[in-house]
Amino acid sequence: MTMQTVSLNTSYGGTQGVYRHASRETRTDMTFSVYVPPHADGSRLPVVWYLSGLTCTHANVTEKGEFRSACAALGLIFVAPDTSPRGEGVPGDPANAYDFGLGAGFYVDATREPFARNYRMWSYVTEELPKLVAENFPVDPNRQSILGHSMGGHGALTVALRHPDRYRAASAFSPIVAPSQVPWGIKALGGYLGDNKQAWRKHDAVALIEDGARLSDLLVDYGDADQFLTEQLRPELLQGACEKAKIPLTLRRQPGYDHSYYFISTFMADHLRWHAERLKG
Amino acid sequence: MTMQTVSLNTSYGGTQGVYRHASRETRTDMTFSVYVPPHADGSRLPVVWYLSGLTCTHANVTEKGEFRSACAALGLIFVAPDTSPRGEGVPGDPANAYDFGLGAGFYVDATREPFARNYRMWSYVTEELPKLVAENFPVDPNRQSILGHSMGGHGALTVALRHPDRYRAASAFSPIVAPSQVPWGIKALGGYLGDNKQAWRKHDAVALIEDGARLSDLLVDYGDADQFLTEQLRPELLQGACEKAKIPLTLRRQPGYDHSYYFISTFMADHLRWHAERLKG
Repeated sequence: MTMQTVSLNTSYGGTQGVYRHASRETRTDMTFSVYVPPHADGSRLPVVWYLSGLTCTHANVTEKGEFRSACAALGLIFVAPDTSPRGEGVPGDPANAYDFGLGAGFYVDATREPFARNYRMWSYVTEELPKLVAENFPVDPNRQSILGHSMGGHGALTVALRHPDRYRAASAFSPIVAPSQVPWGIKALGGYLGDNKQAWRKHDAVALIEDGARLSDLLVDYGDADQFLTEQLRPELLQGACEKAKIPLTLRRQPGYDHSYYFISTFMADHLRWHAERLKG
Repeated sequence: MTMQTVSLNTSYGGTQGVYRHASRETRTDMTFSVYVPPHADGSRLPVVWYLSGLTCTHANVTEKGEFRSACAALGLIFVAPDTSPRGEGVPGDPANAYDFGLGAGFYVDATREPFARNYRMWSYVTEELPKLVAENFPVDPNRQSILGHSMGGHGALTVALRHPDRYRAASAFSPIVAPSQVPWGIKALGGYLGDNKQAWRKHDAVALIEDGARLSDLLVDYGDADQFLTEQLRPELLQGACEKAKIPLTLRRQPGYDHSYYFISTFMADHLRWHAERLKG
């Protein structure tokens, strides 16, 4: 698999890169970013995957996420994929809404037409991109973790729950925890997967936990001034599922914070330290 | 003077605000951002002014500057103005170049037509905006400092050199130190001020130092991979002027860094700590 370098910038002693490649899964070019911290030649480093929210590309967290300082100090590689296929011929939301189609892949492999051809974000972020990254960057495949924001928090939780042996840690900012039960998720899962709600359960963190998936522990932050909190995010549903399943969940309600990168950046270093603890040795 | 709030976001325990007001100087609406760190009610805080570079608005540093973490820890207010007037009827570069007109006010009061009516960025950043900020935020007018990037580094140095009693500290990332001697500056100072090069000297840090202006000390960082280094920035001219004038200059050549916010954000906390030291008590 080949990729081309879009940009390289020295930052905090390491290198922030942006790369593009022709994706086999999405049948489009895909762009992603990788930060490699300062490190000794030949060493293999733990890698943290970051999945972004609705409307975002790799660029939002890369520019506004304030992760490089902590990644440089902790020796973490940080990878940020896009949130959907893009480009000529890729179908979007029929009404051009922000919450479906372009920028809103929801980390599923679509089975419904006309989306099934390109919307393969599940396979892209769990199979194709990890292989490409492993081939091109000094990652230690035994030390991987994942986090995400909002729709990407949904992605991070579902990916981690279905790959307990691959990701040593998972955390989220303001995640959509039960897409089957909230408007954003019902629209997206219905649109990409069709009406069979059984198929939705593999893309719903709360349903996965109810169906037996487990994580060793979990860190979730949300802001109590988040405009999407009560209708779309509903952290209490994750709390209930984790309690029942005895999954240790650290759920923090951050006073005054909203859904933006001003919130994410504030707690990013905190999350990365939590990940680094679990990626040791 | 009145202003309207464009947005408020909690970040690092403080508040990142964006504001708009009708400027008397530029005869346009002007937008700026202010970060207020967590603080006790009624306390007055030191304030750091940040002047941005070519093409930027307040938004670039506000989104990519990574200053809030350090400002919260050090108790600093951080103010970021725009770099030019904007809006209907404001003349720009005749050829739509990025280095003159909109986004390129160069922190001067233009005397040449058609720019004299709106391009009053010197008076805006040194008089009008400080008054507005003092009226609306808990700033301590006796503890102010200034920094900037590129064209904004030029702005920070010239503003500090001409107000030695107002700003206790000045620093810069990749500043244009001698605009009278480099293409960007010759175009801008000629375009805004006309051909009388005597008038340029008050907007040229090296010339101001030659003419007797002084600073108690100065911190300047630049990247050795900066594409503008040898033609536009020429830090050696500042070094020569400071040596002659016995101004203590800490001039740091940062290996591998370019002209971008990936560079600025890396050293932002460092600069803010340096400012905070000088803003004590």
